[in-house]
Formats: sequence, C-alpha cells, structure tokens
Amino acid sequence: MGGFAKVNAVSPLPLRLGIVTVSDRASQGVYEDLGGPAIRAYFTEVLTSPFEAVPRLIPDDQATIEAALRSLVDEEGCCLVVTTGGTGPAIRDVTPEATVAVGDKEMPGFGELMRQVSLKYVPTAILSRQTAVIRKNALIVNLPGKPKSIRECLDAVMPAIPYCLDLIGGPFLTTDESKVKVFRPKEK
Amino acid sequence: MGGFAKVNAVSPLPLRLGIVTVSDRASQGVYEDLGGPAIRAYFTEVLTSPFEAVPRLIPDDQATIEAALRSLVDEEGCCLVVTTGGTGPAIRDVTPEATVAVGDKEMPGFGELMRQVSLKYVPTAILSRQTAVIRKNALIVNLPGKPKSIRECLDAVMPAIPYCLDLIGGPFLTTDESKVKVFRPKEK
Amino acid sequence: MGGFAKVNAVSPLPLRLGIVTVSDRASQGVYEDLGGPAIRAYFTEVLTSPFEAVPRLIPDDQATIEAALRSLVDEEGCCLVVTTGGTGPAIRDVTPEATVAVGDKEMPGFGELMRQVSLKYVPTAILSRQTAVIRKNALIVNLPGKPKSIRECLDAVMPAIPYCLDLIGGPFLTTDESKVKVFRPKEK
Repeated sequence: MGGFAKVNAVSPLPLRLGIVTVSDRASQGVYEDLGGPAIRAYFTEVLTSPFEAVPRLIPDDQATIEAALRSLVDEEGCCLVVTTGGTGPAIRDVTPEATVAVGDKEMPGFGELMRQVSLKYVPTAILSRQTAVIRKNALIVNLPGKPKSIRECLDAVMPAIPYCLDLIGGPFLTTDESKVKVFRPKEK
Repeated sequence: MGGFAKVNAVSPLPLRLGIVTVSDRASQGVYEDLGGPAIRAYFTEVLTSPFEAVPRLIPDDQATIEAALRSLVDEEGCCLVVTTGGTGPAIRDVTPEATVAVGDKEMPGFGELMRQVSLKYVPTAILSRQTAVIRKNALIVNLPGKPKSIRECLDAVMPAIPYCLDLIGGPFLTTDESKVKVFRPKEK
Repeated sequence: MGGFAKVNAVSPLPLRLGIVTVSDRASQGVYEDLGGPAIRAYFTEVLTSPFEAVPRLIPDDQATIEAALRSLVDEEGCCLVVTTGGTGPAIRDVTPEATVAVGDKEMPGFGELMRQVSLKYVPTAILSRQTAVIRKNALIVNLPGKPKSIRECLDAVMPAIPYCLDLIGGPFLTTDESKVKVFRPKEK
C-alpha cells in the first residue's frame, strides 16, 4: 500500500487516453482510419509522462458515440478522451451532440480556440462544430478528421490540458517542452 | 428525366435564398426596411450562380420568426436563409432564440467569427447574439440590422457558405472571385 | 413628478451594482475575498456616474448562486451584476450554470471576448467557462477569480456595458474616458 503510493510519487500513474475515431466509412473498412493513428503519434511525440492509448473506431451514430465515450471514462478509466471526425454540418455529423450529451460541463473555450486557429488556414473552419466537455474526472475534446488539422488543433489546446486534468483529479502530465510548453498558473 | 439532369449539369439549379427582415417598426411601415434590400444587393453583386430571393418582413415575435423560417425551408425550398435584426439584448430581440428553436444543429463558428469581425469596428459587437443553424438541407444565418454591418459579416462568412451547402445537399454556388473567394477543401 | 424627472435628467439614478464573490473558502473565512474588492475598486476608478455596490460572499453551490443572482436583480434592483470565481472545470465550479439558469437570454460575445483577451496572458484561459446573460432589465457577467484577470476582462467588456444597459432599460452610465472609452452607436 505504502509501496503503491511511493511508486505513484516517483513515476506518476499513466494516463489512460481514449482515442475515438468517428467515421461511417473507416468503421466499415471502406478506407483507412488516419485520424486515430495521427492522434496517437502526436501524444507519443509530445508527452514525456507515461500513457496508454485506448482506441475505438465507430460509425457516425449518436447513441454509439455516447456509449463509447461513457465506457472510456466510466469503465476504462480514461481521464482524457479525444475524438476525430463527425463535427461538420452534414446530417451524419453528430459527434458534438454526443459529446455534449455525456458531459457534466461544457468547455466552450476549446471549440472557440480550435476554430480560431484553423481559420488561419481555411475559411471553412467555421463549419466545424467541435467542442469539449468534462465528464466526471475526464476531459473529452473533439478534433477534426484530417491529420493536419488534428495537429494544428492539438498544438493550440495542449498547453492547457495538463492543468485542466490537475483540476479535475487526473494524472500529472508532462511534455517535451521543445514541442509543447505546458502552463500551470501559480495558486493564488 | 435525362434532360433534367443535363440542364442541371450545364446550368445549376438556382439557389432559393430566404431573406427575413425581423423588425417591429419596419414591419408596421414606421420606417423602411434597409436590411433586406442590403442582403439582396450583396448576393446580386457576389453570386455568379443563379438565385431567387424569397423575402419576408415580420415583427420581433418568436413564434412568427420560427414560422417564417420553417416555411422558407420546408415549403419554399430555400437552402440558405439569412435574417437581419433582432439579435441584441433588448426584450424584443428574439431572432437567435427562434433560429435555434428551428435548427437541427447549431453552428457556433458563424456567430463567433461575425462578432470577431464586427469587434474591429465597434466594441458593442459583443452585444450581438447572432448565430447560425442547419435545418434539414438548409443553412440559416443571423445577420445584424445595419447595412454596413451586414456587409462586414457576409464578407467574413461567405467564403465558407458554398462548401457548407455542398455538405448538406444544397445547390452548387459560385461567386465573383474578385469580390468573395470561395473555399472548397479537397476531399481527403 | 416633474421634479423627479428633472432630478433624473440632471443627476442620473445611481446604478445598483451587484458584486457576487463565489468561493467555498472565502465564504468560510479560510481566506480573504480578493475578487469582490477588486471589482468594487475597478468601478470606483472607472465610473463617473453614481453607483452603489451590493456585495455578496457565497459558497460554490448552484442553488445558492442562483438565489443570490435572482435576489440582486429582482429585489435589490441591480441592473448590473458581476460575479467572481467558480468558472473553471472543477466539480465545485458551477457559476456559469447558475448564471445561465437565471438568465432570459445568453450573451455569448462576453465570454468569447474575455477568453480571447485572457489568452494573450495565459493559455489556460480556455479553461474558463465564463458567460453573461440578461435577466429582466439586468446584465449579469461572470468574471475570473484573480484580481489581475478581473481587470483584464473588465477592460475588454466595459466599453459595451453602458450601451447594453441603455438597451435593457438600465441607468445611463458614464466613465472616465482616460480609463475606459464607452461606445454608443448612433441610432440608424
């Protein structure tokens, strides 16, 4: 027991990172899932604290997405879950609705900043409805579908994610500061 | 049948464009509707694909606005509807509420960008609650009341509107590129 | 009657300004309330029209916050209420939820602009869920907890607040223009 606490202090508990690819076509094998692996590669490159990826590949169905998000947080113990795909205006795009439905609190600043950053590259960034929520002690963040846009969005919000996890009781994350500089405000 | 498809391919189906002026005073004839004609003039100047304007002039009443929006999309076949007026904080300003009430999906990026652009001109831009939604295969966008602000907001969001209509099954829009440069991302 | 109107014209009715500090620890006396006094100092410095502060110091409990906001608007006659604290992602942070629950209309532009301004200083600004609403003839604005951030946010939104109060039937506010330049658009 004391040993557990000691291990915990020396090397922090690994983050369980849910990665949810939402795509009718990729989930049917019609084409390759590029978003999920791009997210995994990003965290492998940027995080210096340990993490384990828990991937999911599911169709654009709201009930299925909700079930995946709930399971990753409640059963798999993921304190961070990122989704890719399904944030646009088309009829099958329901990732934001599923995300809000399972959230305890919405975090509007994530979607605002990610759209603002994407707008530097493409005017169609305003068509993305991506958001973020807190569910229990987990942060769930919607990302776009394309690997290039995923990286741009993660670069924008990643500096704030470790402190967010501190505040909701998640593991202590550290990053390669040459890639992403984490910010933790001093307590007042 | 083949003839219809051919006509459709050579010259695209015209956009039915709903233009809804929301104003107690203009709808009573107390003063002239300036917003509606300003919107029509903008699209006449910018669009090179065919369109037909379907105008409405109604008071600041939520049920009336909702009925107008539903009728323009469901009965008139408008794939794009723009409103002008009723987005402020006053008690009679209910255009955003009516818009959200008839929408299947909210598109937060439109309001965010339009407020950001208007903020370059006036600090009171934050008082505008304008938003956008998808209803069935139509995009509904709230614009401000003043012709000058209408133009600023349309210039900001217009580059993304044709691709949005592509995604929801609307007609293919083209513009005079010297005025508004449309952006359509390449499919991945 | 005429005398009242005359007095009103010469020296405007004072603004009743609700100041709500939301903090479990400050409300238990565990530490000092710094946010409330910082807000009062800001308005004392900036407003040249008369105002009376109506302060409240309450815990992070949603029902308690809602009751305080309702009482300040409905019973105390405050046409402007500002809160400090409780806007983050932690489980006890429920100020935005309480604010939206008592609001007739949400004003998304306030939260968007305050987060944008705070982002110039700290990347964790996206973790703030602060918003603003209209309740009856009052504007309610969420501010962060730290005095430095309070000032940054008030500097950003203050230029639009007097015109907002004009539109909802509040008193006519004036400021020291060397500190905050108020903007009132000309009527069309």
